Amino acid sequence: MIVILKSGADDNVVEAVVARITELGLAPHISRGRFRTIIGAIGEEHPESIQLLEEITGVERVVPIMKPYKLASREFHPDSSVFKIGNVTVGEGFVTVIAGPCAIESEELMSEVAVSVKAAGASILRGGAYKPRTSPYAFQGLGEEGLKILRTVSDRLGMPAITEVMDPRDVDLVERYTDIFQIGARNMQNYNLLMEVGKTRKPVFLKRGLSAPIKEWLMSAEYILSQGNQQVIMCERGIRTFSDETRFTLDISAIPVVKEVSHLPVFVDPSHASGRRALVAPLALAAVAAGGDGLMIEVHSCPDKAKCDGPQALLPESFLELMTSIGKLARLLNKQVS
Amino acid sequence: MIVILKSGADDNVVEAVVARITELGLAPHISRGRFRTIIGAIGEEHPESIQLLEEITGVERVVPIMKPYKLASREFHPDSSVFKIGNVTVGEGFVTVIAGPCAIESEELMSEVAVSVKAAGASILRGGAYKPRTSPYAFQGLGEEGLKILRTVSDRLGMPAITEVMDPRDVDLVERYTDIFQIGARNMQNYNLLMEVGKTRKPVFLKRGLSAPIKEWLMSAEYILSQGNQQVIMCERGIRTFSDETRFTLDISAIPVVKEVSHLPVFVDPSHASGRRALVAPLALAAVAAGGDGLMIEVHSCPDKAKCDGPQALLPESFLELMTSIGKLARLLNKQVS
Amino acid sequence: MIVILKSGADDNVVEAVVARITELGLAPHISRGRFRTIIGAIGEEHPESIQLLEEITGVERVVPIMKPYKLASREFHPDSSVFKIGNVTVGEGFVTVIAGPCAIESEELMSEVAVSVKAAGASILRGGAYKPRTSPYAFQGLGEEGLKILRTVSDRLGMPAITEVMDPRDVDLVERYTDIFQIGARNMQNYNLLMEVGKTRKPVFLKRGLSAPIKEWLMSAEYILSQGNQQVIMCERGIRTFSDETRFTLDISAIPVVKEVSHLPVFVDPSHASGRRALVAPLALAAVAAGGDGLMIEVHSCPDKAKCDGPQALLPESFLELMTSIGKLARLLNKQVS
Amino acid sequence: MIVILKSGADDNVVEAVVARITELGLAPHISRGRFRTIIGAIGEEHPESIQLLEEITGVERVVPIMKPYKLASREFHPDSSVFKIGNVTVGEGFVTVIAGPCAIESEELMSEVAVSVKAAGASILRGGAYKPRTSPYAFQGLGEEGLKILRTVSDRLGMPAITEVMDPRDVDLVERYTDIFQIGARNMQNYNLLMEVGKTRKPVFLKRGLSAPIKEWLMSAEYILSQGNQQVIMCERGIRTFSDETRFTLDISAIPVVKEVSHLPVFVDPSHASGRRALVAPLALAAVAAGGDGLMIEVHSCPDKAKCDGPQALLPESFLELMTSIGKLARLLNKQVS
Repeated sequence: MIVILKSGADDNVVEAVVARITELGLAPHISRGRFRTIIGAIGEEHPESIQLLEEITGVERVVPIMKPYKLASREFHPDSSVFKIGNVTVGEGFVTVIAGPCAIESEELMSEVAVSVKAAGASILRGGAYKPRTSPYAFQGLGEEGLKILRTVSDRLGMPAITEVMDPRDVDLVERYTDIFQIGARNMQNYNLLMEVGKTRKPVFLKRGLSAPIKEWLMSAEYILSQGNQQVIMCERGIRTFSDETRFTLDISAIPVVKEVSHLPVFVDPSHASGRRALVAPLALAAVAAGGDGLMIEVHSCPDKAKCDGPQALLPESFLELMTSIGKLARLLNKQVS
Repeated sequence: MIVILKSGADDNVVEAVVARITELGLAPHISRGRFRTIIGAIGEEHPESIQLLEEITGVERVVPIMKPYKLASREFHPDSSVFKIGNVTVGEGFVTVIAGPCAIESEELMSEVAVSVKAAGASILRGGAYKPRTSPYAFQGLGEEGLKILRTVSDRLGMPAITEVMDPRDVDLVERYTDIFQIGARNMQNYNLLMEVGKTRKPVFLKRGLSAPIKEWLMSAEYILSQGNQQVIMCERGIRTFSDETRFTLDISAIPVVKEVSHLPVFVDPSHASGRRALVAPLALAAVAAGGDGLMIEVHSCPDKAKCDGPQALLPESFLELMTSIGKLARLLNKQVS
Repeated sequence: MIVILKSGADDNVVEAVVARITELGLAPHISRGRFRTIIGAIGEEHPESIQLLEEITGVERVVPIMKPYKLASREFHPDSSVFKIGNVTVGEGFVTVIAGPCAIESEELMSEVAVSVKAAGASILRGGAYKPRTSPYAFQGLGEEGLKILRTVSDRLGMPAITEVMDPRDVDLVERYTDIFQIGARNMQNYNLLMEVGKTRKPVFLKRGLSAPIKEWLMSAEYILSQGNQQVIMCERGIRTFSDETRFTLDISAIPVVKEVSHLPVFVDPSHASGRRALVAPLALAAVAAGGDGLMIEVHSCPDKAKCDGPQALLPESFLELMTSIGKLARLLNKQVS
Repeated sequence: MIVILKSGADDNVVEAVVARITELGLAPHISRGRFRTIIGAIGEEHPESIQLLEEITGVERVVPIMKPYKLASREFHPDSSVFKIGNVTVGEGFVTVIAGPCAIESEELMSEVAVSVKAAGASILRGGAYKPRTSPYAFQGLGEEGLKILRTVSDRLGMPAITEVMDPRDVDLVERYTDIFQIGARNMQNYNLLMEVGKTRKPVFLKRGLSAPIKEWLMSAEYILSQGNQQVIMCERGIRTFSDETRFTLDISAIPVVKEVSHLPVFVDPSHASGRRALVAPLALAAVAAGGDGLMIEVHSCPDKAKCDGPQALLPESFLELMTSIGKLARLLNKQVS
């Protein structure tokens, strides 16, 4: 890292900084300018080291030069990660579509939606058994009963299943039924949950927190990777901004930014990002055009009666139309809809 | 609008609200609920009326039900606006690409870039003669000399020209040289400037303010339209959010949102939004896929020596490559690159 | 709630909305305007009802008129909540200061800091045994060993203790050692954790999420209150915005806003909000002046060697100085430092 | 500045950077680390130089170490600026209150409000003759007639007057009537306007832009100072964030942050920040407690009939009450209400 001293900092400050750098096992490198002195600290950068240097009186700021994540970085793993989930290939060169209802409500409904999304070309089936709801008075999901429905339907159709886990105590149970763990935006920094799914060997679909800088999102992936689980999928789902015409603001730039610094696949959830059905198709196409490796889309066979998030779910017929456009766009980009 | 009374508001409040509504020439409509009373005020909604009702003690809030803009709305003008600028058609069904350097530096450089962007398929030539710079010590543009260069080059190549105007005092001068006025993000609410360009009959390219909700952006378009100038192009160029990996956050959803409520064409500027050359192509393609009517892209023939914003300008060869992809994508969407 | 129909919506839409309102056990109330029809739905407002109405084709939007939280509201509990935690009174009329190190590092250090903050006038002792760290490679806290140190020191000094709990599996263990549960900003919507602490009868100190609107923060309090735990303290600790000179942006307005709609006490954490020692005192005084019921402040006896968050911790001598100012300010406001 | 090379950058990159640094008249200083090479560039930092270095292939980023503003910095002017405006002293050690209606509506109303705010202890009179309104259909101010009213009333009461100027063409006219120019938030980066008021010798009250980082706000002050006008007052008036319970989010930390790096006085406008009358007093007291040098507060004698922004204006009796509290708080802080 680079330690920038305050203007007017004297030799005592320089000495204190050099001493601390040496203590930390790093090599100091002094540059004295006309207005400022800056001191390079060469070697491993620990979060603690940065702080210990920032602490010294006379230091203006410390600029890290290394990325704080390792296993998630392209420097560590130059090739884009591509992996199989059941019969589905996820990663560079593919466009993978996950679809299904927001919440699992009944086997009948789940089955109806699953059949339609499979026919349209989706390859992975989503459905929530545990729902994080802002209000304690809202429908919270069917729990294990929901997981069973999801498993039954996905087995019948031969589609891998994905479902959200919200509590470290549920990881074992959910693991028995799902093929992919989904970590919701509100749990992106629920570190104990990240560690628990990191200990399993099932892929983790990690949604970006509503106010997470990309670095922190990658640090959350690092929590999972550091436990030995190598299959993490990043999912941009909109961030909180002042803009109030959509539920969240889809940060489309996150796709190329993450793909530049990390080898992990990047998906987009246009349904939650916008909160409005009419915006799902344009955002989905934009995500694929920007280089996204996949999409997660809410589909409901009768959204007027959905138990949650109805206004953003596509009807099966609109989903089919969208999948046709996605297929054409993928071909244009020399990608395969997996 | 709808006036929601505080819980426990008594008949005196109801009377005061009804009296004020009547005074404003509106018709009141009372609904008494178990917990709250709400009163509808039916008729024209003026910003002043909303305030006058919010003022009354016992009123919790006033919910407007009409859009605050008229001329910019689809209700006023159901068909998407399509208009000609010189030989270039802008609007629904077309993808129009504006390209050129950020600042005009010399006729030689301008000409070199213009020839290359025209060859690649751009139809409108951009170049700044007045540059809004954060620092008073940075290069501020060549002024009228720059305008002359722009005119000469654009006439020679038969491309309409666009350039930014920052000061109401410069509108007459700039009008003599340009085909389209550009209003920068920092001037989106410079109302006197909006009125001045509104009085001309040249198209106005209105960039979204860095922290402007879409409603306020459309209200700024309304300022121009209300002066009789019917040709306004909206340009999304990134908003200020906490996300710090890109200079701004491109609000890709703004495209379908504006097109849903307004008839005006919507463009995107991926160069300023991202501030980084490597992100320009993915964002440009995303913008077209999301339904954008056009793009404004910075191109520089030797960006290493650009006087401003070099790191975001594309080199001519990358621009050519991008235009090829845009052409294919436009065809896929049944649109014409104009 | 109020259902606003799209302009041009016909009688079929009106009928569909009226039917759905009736189905939901609510009473419909129609107002036909020149441009729009609006329909009031009088009775209980469930989140599901709002959605079911928004779903109907021809509905533009649904405006809720009731607050989504109940037990947290002043309507439910008009008097400000005041409660005792050990010998310390918290709530309206008091200014309560919680102080201590960010992380518990050793009994010696904890004891040293505790003695100094008690002498300066702090009444509750803080210290973290489980630390939510952005990086999996950073110090994560001493766990149960830390809890034991906190208990020992706080018993010795007769100060109630507060410590963070991050995992529903740890609630029982932490409950044995602490007097107050702290829920960190990143766990504000960890609903299972909220329910677990809601089932205990120890006060909960609920930090605002980094991107939580005040309504969602109160909904999280509602999760705790709905389990029967009546003692919730709200803590504003800064939100994520574009402003980059401080780690977060302290939303000082949150104090009067929450106190207006809720009976719960509101505290402020100026240390985490700013991330910089020099800003702690001005923000702490501002929080008290704005009506805050208390403060949580990081103090460290030798911040240059802190294991975490050193740059924001006050030294004991600065803390003493600050407490003197807080004491004077509290007296000016006719409040007691508890 | 410091140039950080990409990992793996070879000697050609080092040479190119060193050559460019030398070309720019700066002295290069190379530090080779195990993972990265960093090169210091010692000397003056121009915005252009940063870009020219960032342009070089193989450069990851350039970290500036100097502040981009000079005249506004404490390094240039170590003592806090204190200056007289008529008989009123503004700056460190004083709390100055500017009060009056948002818009000037009539001499009678202006006079009534002015008498009451003077009696309560305000020392500077505000009133808008040109109003920046989001809607072209809203009341835009009385123009010169309003300026005359403001001058007449302020002369009669012996209070300096402040009014907003929005257009460079109006600077001469406004200068004839006002004692202080106000630059509104939406014009903070209207650089030509800043230059025009910079050329006068009347103090400038510079509101922070809705999405301006503190550095950009100080750069706007630099525009004014660079024209020779030394009397700039910074005014924090709330920023745009996701938080929706107040019109804007008052960034209270801006007070100590600006005062740390700059010698300019910092005021706060709690009326516009909150947009709600009930929040004005708590925010005003917080601003003074945080070290603010003054306040700008809207007062209206009959807010129910205000032509604009009524809901946020205080009634004279509430203003009097607030001034009493401000007086006590100022004394506690050893400051004088000027």
